[in-house]
Amino acid sequence: MYLGIDLGGTKIAVGIIDENGKIIEHERIPTRRSRLPSAIIEDIITLGNKLVGSQAEGTVYAAGIGVPGIVDASKGVIVNCVNLGWKDISIEAILSNGLDLPVFAGNDATIAGIAEMEAGVLRGIKTGVMLTLGTGIGGAVICEQRIQHGANNIASEIGHMIVGQNFYNCSCGRNGCLETFSSATALVKYTRRLLSGSGISSLPRGNSRNQNGRINGTMIFDAAKAGDPLANKAVDRVVKYLAIGIMNIVTVIDPDLIVLGGGMSEAGDFFLEKIKKEAENVKFFKEIPISEIIYGKFGQDAGLIGAGLYAKQRKR
Amino acid sequence: MYLGIDLGGTKIAVGIIDENGKIIEHERIPTRRSRLPSAIIEDIITLGNKLVGSQAEGTVYAAGIGVPGIVDASKGVIVNCVNLGWKDISIEAILSNGLDLPVFAGNDATIAGIAEMEAGVLRGIKTGVMLTLGTGIGGAVICEQRIQHGANNIASEIGHMIVGQNFYNCSCGRNGCLETFSSATALVKYTRRLLSGSGISSLPRGNSRNQNGRINGTMIFDAAKAGDPLANKAVDRVVKYLAIGIMNIVTVIDPDLIVLGGGMSEAGDFFLEKIKKEAENVKFFKEIPISEIIYGKFGQDAGLIGAGLYAKQRKR
Repeated sequence: MYLGIDLGGTKIAVGIIDENGKIIEHERIPTRRSRLPSAIIEDIITLGNKLVGSQAEGTVYAAGIGVPGIVDASKGVIVNCVNLGWKDISIEAILSNGLDLPVFAGNDATIAGIAEMEAGVLRGIKTGVMLTLGTGIGGAVICEQRIQHGANNIASEIGHMIVGQNFYNCSCGRNGCLETFSSATALVKYTRRLLSGSGISSLPRGNSRNQNGRINGTMIFDAAKAGDPLANKAVDRVVKYLAIGIMNIVTVIDPDLIVLGGGMSEAGDFFLEKIKKEAENVKFFKEIPISEIIYGKFGQDAGLIGAGLYAKQRKR
Repeated sequence: MYLGIDLGGTKIAVGIIDENGKIIEHERIPTRRSRLPSAIIEDIITLGNKLVGSQAEGTVYAAGIGVPGIVDASKGVIVNCVNLGWKDISIEAILSNGLDLPVFAGNDATIAGIAEMEAGVLRGIKTGVMLTLGTGIGGAVICEQRIQHGANNIASEIGHMIVGQNFYNCSCGRNGCLETFSSATALVKYTRRLLSGSGISSLPRGNSRNQNGRINGTMIFDAAKAGDPLANKAVDRVVKYLAIGIMNIVTVIDPDLIVLGGGMSEAGDFFLEKIKKEAENVKFFKEIPISEIIYGKFGQDAGLIGAGLYAKQRKR
């Protein structure tokens, strides 16, 4: 068995994952990211040791951790993690010392892709891409049945693909990144912008002081499903640019399968059908079929399961 | 030895290529593309047989042909070739019959990439991309040391990556494709647009009737090198979007090496240095290095050499 750790900006999930990607047990704790990295890592070690201790001795072989940022897998170092404000942290060495296990770190979205590749819908697929649609947009790219990390560990950073011009800049400092159009954050931002106009909507408008936190992605999707025109306009913009991003991926590697995961995948068929329809609309060769687009098998658990299976993969 | 055929919209190059990618002899003939496919193919067969006949009997093992369009390599069929207006042509069977050799067909830009991969700057590279910058923009994508054809034979169609909004539509019917910003055709179109305004330039302005054909990419690059402000503005726009396209490729596969070829590469260091500088400017993580960007080894001959080496590769 393996210890899987999914380090997020809001929550940390830690679990025992078996060889087949089944979650044997797991716990979630808040990240409280304003704390020092050492305090957060200490929490991970404490919870990890508790879970490993609950298993028969010697049955947990290694640990894997998914990090929302750039990881240099060859050095076991978090190069940069904008969400948490972490830079140059030797995460593998520190955790390995605290957990007394070999530890393998990777990008969280890439690791979610590994879950689907080892035990989910990407199993046996030659060329595939997983997009994790949440606060940001992450990716996992598989070519020749191997996860692509890239020359500088920035393969699959598809959230930073430029797909148009936007009304606000990306956290990377540029304008037009896919995640500023098609992440949950982008959906909320654009909906707020629409709500500040006169469009008819059932969504709460609020004023500039109390607007923050009053609407979220789930509320917008629910309103859109109920026929709210403003919410539908916002969802359609997410879909428009996501389809461009997907087609841009097709121009590079034309994958067999494109898998969507992350929090936004909870919007279900309503969202997926819109994406598939729009991808058909923006095909560059009308008569040539494009990659199949489906949801992942593991939903929100892909990061945790993938972390365990990543440890298994790397330990081999 | 192998027979290489580079089928272009204007010219057809046919040559004898040795095992190492050296051109033993070759000839070029005009395509005269308004003719029926059968007449053009007949010309290829006649020239091919002449060149094969000039070699000792049995020393030419196979033929390769690069086509400016979509090829289904598993069936040996040209699916669609917009430039020539060809559709559903069993090119391998027809040529094989006329040449009495095994024939292997592929996309011309992909085949140019194969030349660099087998005998040029992409040799031994794990992940690499070649962009052929000419009338359009073609690509070749290498992952895990293998050329990527994709699930539907449209991998490496990077000319159709959407990178912004443009003042004219792409031949594919969409707006914003990389080749409408950064091909030689795009350079000429944008320069003409600038020339219709009041910007100072040494380039010939002409009127709407005699403008066609009066300027070309080489003239614009030469003027830009000589300091012409309007020509530089046009080149800089080509460079701006090419850098976005390159960085978008990096977000997917983060290649070890990006190789530029095609007619526009004749603009030399002037062009390459601008591209490298702009790619640095549009990096999404400022502190992380990006793929090296260089010119290919074979320049305009990459298509012909690649066709021979593709035949060698497929014949194995």
